[in-house]
Amino acid sequence: MGCGRRPGAYMSDLKPREFLMIPGPTPVPDAVLEAAGKHPIGHRTPECSKALREAVDGLKWLGQTGNDAFVLTSSGTGAMEAAIANTINSSDRVLSVIVGVFGERWAKIAEAYGASVDRLVVEPGKAVSVDEVKAKIESAKKKEPYKAITITHNETSTGVINNLQGLASAAKNAGVLSIVDAVTSYGAVNLPIDDWGLDVVVTGSQKALMLPPGLGVIFFSSRAWQAHAKCNTPRFYFDLAKYRKSLEEDTTPFTPNVSLIMGLKASLDLMRGEGLEAIFERHVKLKTALRAGINALGLKLFVEEDAASPTITAIIPPEGITVDAIRKGLKQRFRIVVADGQEALKGKIFRIGHMGYVFERDILMTLASLEAVLSDLGHKTRPGEAVKAAVSAVR
Amino acid sequence: MGCGRRPGAYMSDLKPREFLMIPGPTPVPDAVLEAAGKHPIGHRTPECSKALREAVDGLKWLGQTGNDAFVLTSSGTGAMEAAIANTINSSDRVLSVIVGVFGERWAKIAEAYGASVDRLVVEPGKAVSVDEVKAKIESAKKKEPYKAITITHNETSTGVINNLQGLASAAKNAGVLSIVDAVTSYGAVNLPIDDWGLDVVVTGSQKALMLPPGLGVIFFSSRAWQAHAKCNTPRFYFDLAKYRKSLEEDTTPFTPNVSLIMGLKASLDLMRGEGLEAIFERHVKLKTALRAGINALGLKLFVEEDAASPTITAIIPPEGITVDAIRKGLKQRFRIVVADGQEALKGKIFRIGHMGYVFERDILMTLASLEAVLSDLGHKTRPGEAVKAAVSAVR
Repeated sequence: MGCGRRPGAYMSDLKPREFLMIPGPTPVPDAVLEAAGKHPIGHRTPECSKALREAVDGLKWLGQTGNDAFVLTSSGTGAMEAAIANTINSSDRVLSVIVGVFGERWAKIAEAYGASVDRLVVEPGKAVSVDEVKAKIESAKKKEPYKAITITHNETSTGVINNLQGLASAAKNAGVLSIVDAVTSYGAVNLPIDDWGLDVVVTGSQKALMLPPGLGVIFFSSRAWQAHAKCNTPRFYFDLAKYRKSLEEDTTPFTPNVSLIMGLKASLDLMRGEGLEAIFERHVKLKTALRAGINALGLKLFVEEDAASPTITAIIPPEGITVDAIRKGLKQRFRIVVADGQEALKGKIFRIGHMGYVFERDILMTLASLEAVLSDLGHKTRPGEAVKAAVSAVR
Repeated sequence: MGCGRRPGAYMSDLKPREFLMIPGPTPVPDAVLEAAGKHPIGHRTPECSKALREAVDGLKWLGQTGNDAFVLTSSGTGAMEAAIANTINSSDRVLSVIVGVFGERWAKIAEAYGASVDRLVVEPGKAVSVDEVKAKIESAKKKEPYKAITITHNETSTGVINNLQGLASAAKNAGVLSIVDAVTSYGAVNLPIDDWGLDVVVTGSQKALMLPPGLGVIFFSSRAWQAHAKCNTPRFYFDLAKYRKSLEEDTTPFTPNVSLIMGLKASLDLMRGEGLEAIFERHVKLKTALRAGINALGLKLFVEEDAASPTITAIIPPEGITVDAIRKGLKQRFRIVVADGQEALKGKIFRIGHMGYVFERDILMTLASLEAVLSDLGHKTRPGEAVKAAVSAVR
């Protein structure tokens, strides 16, 4: 019949919205997009102060904490720098637990501030052993004890989740500050900051908080404030004392990203509606369904079950099929975006993010689309098996 | 007739959109709001790289410069910190020219990084004398010369514009770096970075760039890079070497605010459409019309004509009428927001911002509304005179 359709074109003009199955930015709910997309209001107005106050209260609810919480206009890395610059002096010893790219980032920031950093590097794809960390802390005590230990709760580059409770407890018992990157765990995984005695916890807006990128968040305990009192590291924009003083008047020391504060409030309202337990269970289900489907496709998971992240799954492509080909297939045919490996793992794994505004149907869609792409690329699949396995796994 | 309208209510339910005549956030054009309000795309995609590259090219066009330009996810103060942290060592001497709150901010940031800061403090409402700055620089040469001079091009807290060309020339001739806060001048006032030999220039998104807050911008000259090579100040998130390396691949070292990069590209497209000369002329007209109207209302201008900013006008309220009463009247009756004075000038002046997406009709609306509010508050006005004077002044 013709109809003007170009041969071979697959929905070439009207396309489905690009769907982000990457570890951030993540899908943003319409209500959040609308709240953040309105014309900005003045940042020194009662309306903005009210939204900031409600957002901060919501952040504390989600972190199950009475600690201070501050919203920074920066990416998550800015919040990481704030963590170091407000606690660590140039003479301090720091233990950095490194299970991937983002663990190494802590070490680099601490070194930039002149700290003496010991790296405990774990093989990519594995979690760190709490006993090994304990031994490192004990051994350091004999010379000069660590001031702090930096921990990546959930390693975005490999899809590994560490035993944060065990690590924090080891730190606390030894009088060492725990400084935690929770960028891809906070808001998706149970993270009771007070119960686990975490001193500094940082996250970013574009992950489980379901917002566009542009805000960092930092939680700061009373032990962290004690370290702050003795910390003479140069800082200005990230000086948390300024944020504490301003927050007493429900405002920020510098012009904040007003749009994202409005969005954050909207996002936290949605999360309160779902409830903590439901949010955490949903993410475990997403991981379980996805891993079952990947197994059914005959692909290898990069991380074993006991260390597997509820928010990011890393997958090894089948022999003879490149990560590039899989990513291109998913993007061009289905407008689904998944991530490559980072640095040494580039081209060796691909990563599927499933945090925030992601549901079981998105996992099924991704698995079904991946099955079709793999089949196109010559990988032998049994059509429908991936979806079947995923659905069975979480029935 | 009744009609259910509450007595005394003035458009109590359906209200005009809040109109920001403050020195930031400023009004945002719909096209920019739409570009920034879309669902975020991945930051490591060709689409995002293209927008970043076009935005950076646009920023350089607007700054009339071949210098490097970097987009930071932070407020303007973050970009100010980047300026110091990438050039100044803890032993360095810095001259801070202070004509208001934001001039003092430079001094505080430099001191936070251990610099030895000389303050040249000018009476609020006045611009600095270039000769005085020259004398300070010469006198320092006899002991230990200044590494840099910090300058506020346009002082947001008082509505003063400094003779930046003269100041920069004095610095350059003496081999001193010029570090310039152009937050409320860039994009509204002629600022030829290369012609005037400015080394470091910073701005923010929520001013003349007509965007919501959340981005900082920094321009960095080859002389600034020479200082960078010798600068060992601790920094990570604001380390411009990282931004330079990433920008070579049209990307950023850390997840940027993707939404605002899209908005920035849209905003710069609009500005290219208007043209540099037209943008600068429009702002001079806004100032001229507003000042004529304020004079006609019998109010005193805080800044004399030769130092009056094209983007912010500070006004002294009439005897017996408070700044609070004027601000409340404008906000409640007309939904127009103007700013109070800051710090020592709080309650002494009110400030009207007129930068970015602001036109002659907005000045007329503001003057007419101000006239009505002042009349309500018992100030004797001749109705229509303010508008008449404004229109005549720019005919």
